[in-house]
Amino acid sequence: MAVYTDVNEEQLRRFLLDYGIGEVLSYKGIAEGSENSNFLLHTTSGSYILTLYEKRVDLDDLPFFLCLMQHLARKGLTCPLPVERSDGALIGELAGRPAAIITFLQGMWMRHPTVAQCGEVGRELAQLHLAGADFPMHRANALAIDGWRTLWDGSRARADEVLAGLTAEVETEFATLQRDWPKALPSGIIHADLFPDNVFFLGDRLSGLIDFYFACEDMYAYDLAVCLNAWCFEPDFSFNPAKAAALTSGYQAVRPLTSAEQQALPLLARGSALRFMLTRLYDWLTIPDGALVQKRDPLEYVAKLRFHRGVTTPETYGIT
Amino acid sequence: MAVYTDVNEEQLRRFLLDYGIGEVLSYKGIAEGSENSNFLLHTTSGSYILTLYEKRVDLDDLPFFLCLMQHLARKGLTCPLPVERSDGALIGELAGRPAAIITFLQGMWMRHPTVAQCGEVGRELAQLHLAGADFPMHRANALAIDGWRTLWDGSRARADEVLAGLTAEVETEFATLQRDWPKALPSGIIHADLFPDNVFFLGDRLSGLIDFYFACEDMYAYDLAVCLNAWCFEPDFSFNPAKAAALTSGYQAVRPLTSAEQQALPLLARGSALRFMLTRLYDWLTIPDGALVQKRDPLEYVAKLRFHRGVTTPETYGIT
Repeated sequence: MAVYTDVNEEQLRRFLLDYGIGEVLSYKGIAEGSENSNFLLHTTSGSYILTLYEKRVDLDDLPFFLCLMQHLARKGLTCPLPVERSDGALIGELAGRPAAIITFLQGMWMRHPTVAQCGEVGRELAQLHLAGADFPMHRANALAIDGWRTLWDGSRARADEVLAGLTAEVETEFATLQRDWPKALPSGIIHADLFPDNVFFLGDRLSGLIDFYFACEDMYAYDLAVCLNAWCFEPDFSFNPAKAAALTSGYQAVRPLTSAEQQALPLLARGSALRFMLTRLYDWLTIPDGALVQKRDPLEYVAKLRFHRGVTTPETYGIT
Repeated sequence: MAVYTDVNEEQLRRFLLDYGIGEVLSYKGIAEGSENSNFLLHTTSGSYILTLYEKRVDLDDLPFFLCLMQHLARKGLTCPLPVERSDGALIGELAGRPAAIITFLQGMWMRHPTVAQCGEVGRELAQLHLAGADFPMHRANALAIDGWRTLWDGSRARADEVLAGLTAEVETEFATLQRDWPKALPSGIIHADLFPDNVFFLGDRLSGLIDFYFACEDMYAYDLAVCLNAWCFEPDFSFNPAKAAALTSGYQAVRPLTSAEQQALPLLARGSALRFMLTRLYDWLTIPDGALVQKRDPLEYVAKLRFHRGVTTPETYGIT
């Protein structure tokens, strides 16, 4: 929720010489997005988002993310289109950081999404999976089970400070997931972080997806499980079956799940809840108070993990 | 540098029913402005700034600030125009805060202002003084000497922790200012906080003034002294005589200073440096680490105070 790196007018002017988007009319730091520095840029040719990639993003991954956006936008998915520089590159350097300009998407993210909006998200997620199927670049999911293990190694010693008994609970969970995690489900490009702040709406109409900086190759049904966690619980952490049914049926209206995917959903939702619990726990324990990064409560995802552990059938998620 | 209060889509939709500015297309929190929560709002009718006033702003002062912007804009000064609600009011309530919508100004603030830009600032400051002369509302300067005393009472006990000897230096300064502070200089509406982040440019052309939330009635030459501190020192705290000469001659091209104002300038610049040193010192000592408010270094203004203490003639500021 911050601008980590400021940009001065001369740096920006020189940077824009490599783009054919006109003169700057204004630029303002945006208090959204937890990983990078983002500016809303107005030029004589329109509105754009200028992103400076901070150290949490691996420079080697940037071509994957930006080319994916370009690929998806060309396939008709509403997502930001990276603006090409005069030399054809999508990435430049600004204020000592890798930087890119992408088109501005109208719409706003929903602090309180409705059931209808969850249905829209399901449909769009499936469209994304279909549109990404022929994307030629590769990126493994850095936050699959091995990545979770790394986060856990950095947090385990102090986990019980956050919640008594958490260490034992997570160890048991890891044992189950390691044993039962599916290996042969349909896979391809997934968004992997499709939370409400990454989906814009104009009224009930979905107007765009943003923030592809966790995109990777993994199981499609895992991406849907991420959305179950991100969209189908209320602020008091209670599960909302109507939102889950709208999400899964919206998804299946575009891309029907196989029977194996349906059956795997409760376990994938557990894994996804564990993944977000672990990133939050790691940040909670390692980021000093007073840093600009907003720290989120890991206990929200302990509650979600426990919910999914009690789910025995995909019908709970509205799959009939 | 933050959004202190978030606004959800339903709160915003209801708030906008009282305005005739169309439907929301997007709104994003801006990482600028240290006192209030600001959103850049796009609607079907254009771009606006939505401000939620946080607790540092006195609700009783809001009509003064907003009517002043309206007055100045009508006089031809480029500043944001508060948007009237259907009931004619300028202030509403949003997310439990007083809130207003003002028009969006193009341009960007200069991280490294040039000499020419300092001249533009001088001219515009004088225009503001002239345009405000017949504004009928009143507001005393809450941060005049008595206000500085209050800040100092809350900081003195720990001032030497920040800089050895600071307590004695400030006490001596207070004694001088209390004794010699001018009482009969030309006065009227001043901006009182015209720092670079409150002045927008498009190239070398000044495109607007913003943030009137310290505006009040005080000596015009004091406002110019604030600008000497805000615009005419380099990042290493060294004084830039060319910028000062551009600022003061730009000012005098529109509103010539009286001889008494010219002679008072070194003392007014000391007072203004003390004022910003004291607000920074107070924040430094009282705001907990980790708060969203950005804390600025008080020592920058100790250096400026010491510089002005050595100035014996207004010629130092380019006044001949």
